[in-house]
Amino acid sequence: MVMTSSAPLVLLATTLPILIAASGDAQTIQSPEVHRDGTVTFRLLMPPAQKVEVHLDGIAGMTPITMTKEVTGVWSVTTQPLTPDIYAYQFAVDGQEIVDPNVRAYVSNYFEQGGLFTVPGSPAAIWEQTDVPHGAVSRHFYSSKTTGDQRDYYVYTPPDFDPRSGKRYPVLYLLHGYSDYSDGWITMGRANFILDNLIAQGKAMPMIVVMPSGYSVPALLDHGEDAPKTPLWRLNLERFPEMLLGELVPLLEGTYPVRTDRNSRAIAGLSMGGGETVYTGLNHIDRFAWIAPMSAAIPADLENSFPKLNANQASRIKLLWIACGKQDFLYDENRNFRVWLSSKGIKFTSVETEGVHNWPVWRRNLADLLPALFR
Amino acid sequence: MVMTSSAPLVLLATTLPILIAASGDAQTIQSPEVHRDGTVTFRLLMPPAQKVEVHLDGIAGMTPITMTKEVTGVWSVTTQPLTPDIYAYQFAVDGQEIVDPNVRAYVSNYFEQGGLFTVPGSPAAIWEQTDVPHGAVSRHFYSSKTTGDQRDYYVYTPPDFDPRSGKRYPVLYLLHGYSDYSDGWITMGRANFILDNLIAQGKAMPMIVVMPSGYSVPALLDHGEDAPKTPLWRLNLERFPEMLLGELVPLLEGTYPVRTDRNSRAIAGLSMGGGETVYTGLNHIDRFAWIAPMSAAIPADLENSFPKLNANQASRIKLLWIACGKQDFLYDENRNFRVWLSSKGIKFTSVETEGVHNWPVWRRNLADLLPALFR
Repeated sequence: MVMTSSAPLVLLATTLPILIAASGDAQTIQSPEVHRDGTVTFRLLMPPAQKVEVHLDGIAGMTPITMTKEVTGVWSVTTQPLTPDIYAYQFAVDGQEIVDPNVRAYVSNYFEQGGLFTVPGSPAAIWEQTDVPHGAVSRHFYSSKTTGDQRDYYVYTPPDFDPRSGKRYPVLYLLHGYSDYSDGWITMGRANFILDNLIAQGKAMPMIVVMPSGYSVPALLDHGEDAPKTPLWRLNLERFPEMLLGELVPLLEGTYPVRTDRNSRAIAGLSMGGGETVYTGLNHIDRFAWIAPMSAAIPADLENSFPKLNANQASRIKLLWIACGKQDFLYDENRNFRVWLSSKGIKFTSVETEGVHNWPVWRRNLADLLPALFR
Repeated sequence: MVMTSSAPLVLLATTLPILIAASGDAQTIQSPEVHRDGTVTFRLLMPPAQKVEVHLDGIAGMTPITMTKEVTGVWSVTTQPLTPDIYAYQFAVDGQEIVDPNVRAYVSNYFEQGGLFTVPGSPAAIWEQTDVPHGAVSRHFYSSKTTGDQRDYYVYTPPDFDPRSGKRYPVLYLLHGYSDYSDGWITMGRANFILDNLIAQGKAMPMIVVMPSGYSVPALLDHGEDAPKTPLWRLNLERFPEMLLGELVPLLEGTYPVRTDRNSRAIAGLSMGGGETVYTGLNHIDRFAWIAPMSAAIPADLENSFPKLNANQASRIKLLWIACGKQDFLYDENRNFRVWLSSKGIKFTSVETEGVHNWPVWRRNLADLLPALFR
């Protein structure tokens, strides 16, 4: 509660008022400030620092932006106009990354910390909250027998959702990447607003979207960035269908009015969740008619990962939609996966975009994918 | 995504490994580290700083804790054993407050920034997530005619909730304080886990809890800490019942299976939301039988704020439950309010606890209040 703060007010030089909000709290510096032309000003009061940079995670990845110190002790910089998007960023103070003390929206991630800001589009980008009917986002908790822990999952219900109406919806299982929390597709991906906007435009079917935890082996997270090199990575992949199909799908289908035929069930996901998408989807074509990996961490040893997959069986897939940014570090393994699928006579849609391994790509992927589902 | 980070690994001196997680990322320092005895170690790698402190927002308010710099450039300190609770904290680096770069749970507040950590109880405190059946928390969005903006509200549904069952629930409208976001009672107050635990213990009735935005005049927030001194403060109070009773209650009652008699409708809130609670509740006794302000910002000019209130009318109130910490800066105005109520012959329950104007008090308030509702 701000009303109880015992921090003394710091009186600053009179050259500063333009930076100060009208609150009377002289420590309140406006940062980031997004201007109408898409330029963004960052500010940080840190008098003793020798060097301060902005690390901006944008369309083209991280590029340090050097800030300049004013006599007031405030470091600042204004960027070039930025493409409308949602940006994550940190300040590096003498090489140590910190979160902007004045930002109020945060990156959601087990390992990375940062602030978030939006450069709005005109008209609004598909991931922005606009004045259309909105669906709801519900967080559920349950005890998992597969993992032996308490975990959560998020459910998007569309604007017309009324459980008393008797209407049943198709369902998309949407999987996050390694290092994301279960809310990744909401906080970072804005899946709910993307759905709201596409449904309002008549471009996507009203659907229920389920966003579970992708960690079927929670100990994976103890290994930080090294996790993909450990045997747990494969174990996590192999246990995922058990968790999803054995626990979560029955739980969901007993709680929400969803259709339960395979043509009404889709699976999509990014990075680790892209690997889980193909491993689960292609090994359970009887359950999923729509399979959409994005920037997927493709399972190693394809023949052993998909022992029963063949062209005849794959002909039942309504859509196998494989997206990857051309600058993604997983680009090659996605290309190799497509080559392997082609060698088996399996049809797919390849979606190559600009971009690296980050949320700006996946938000656009989701907006491109959704109109194709359940048609 | 951690897998795409272009930040170079920093190699640290070999005296550091005990601080480093097993991730292989040498920048990953464990902070805060909560020990089994309730002591907590804070660590910050910030070699160039001259002075680093921990500002801890605990039971007894903010007390700076001085950290010590080691030869490695890591500042650290271990606290005395802390009372089981959820703590908010910041680091002050040469007087500038920053969020611990290694914490991953954050304060939710318009003006204050901080990390969060839990010192668990044994047995678990009532606000901790335990292995009991859990309710869900749903976030809804709507366009408000009162305020002319898009806003959100959160709804807790109890573990046995099934909209198809035909069961109808009593409903508590639970209001946050000034500077909180709509999720205040979830992220900071842990209202959902408090309900889950009390319901599992048979101590609280299964109920639906609605947590709206308390800003009926959004411009209030432009005034920061000065807002209570502006005319908007009163306007915000006076418009609140219009927003709640005119918009949100009908919306809620059209969407969720709640009972609509006054004996099944409660209102409670903290600070600004405590003021909204008494202003709305005591002026609409025909709608609310249960009224519970906590650390309330009591409306000025009591006679004009409650023109129709008298003992006869107030006898219809099932519970008027007035809580305030003895060290709260609003203690005197709450005492004066109780004196005024007594002078009119209006009965109430006074709950005086230890504590200042912060969430440790309000979590305990909520846990004490809920068993008394809807009996």
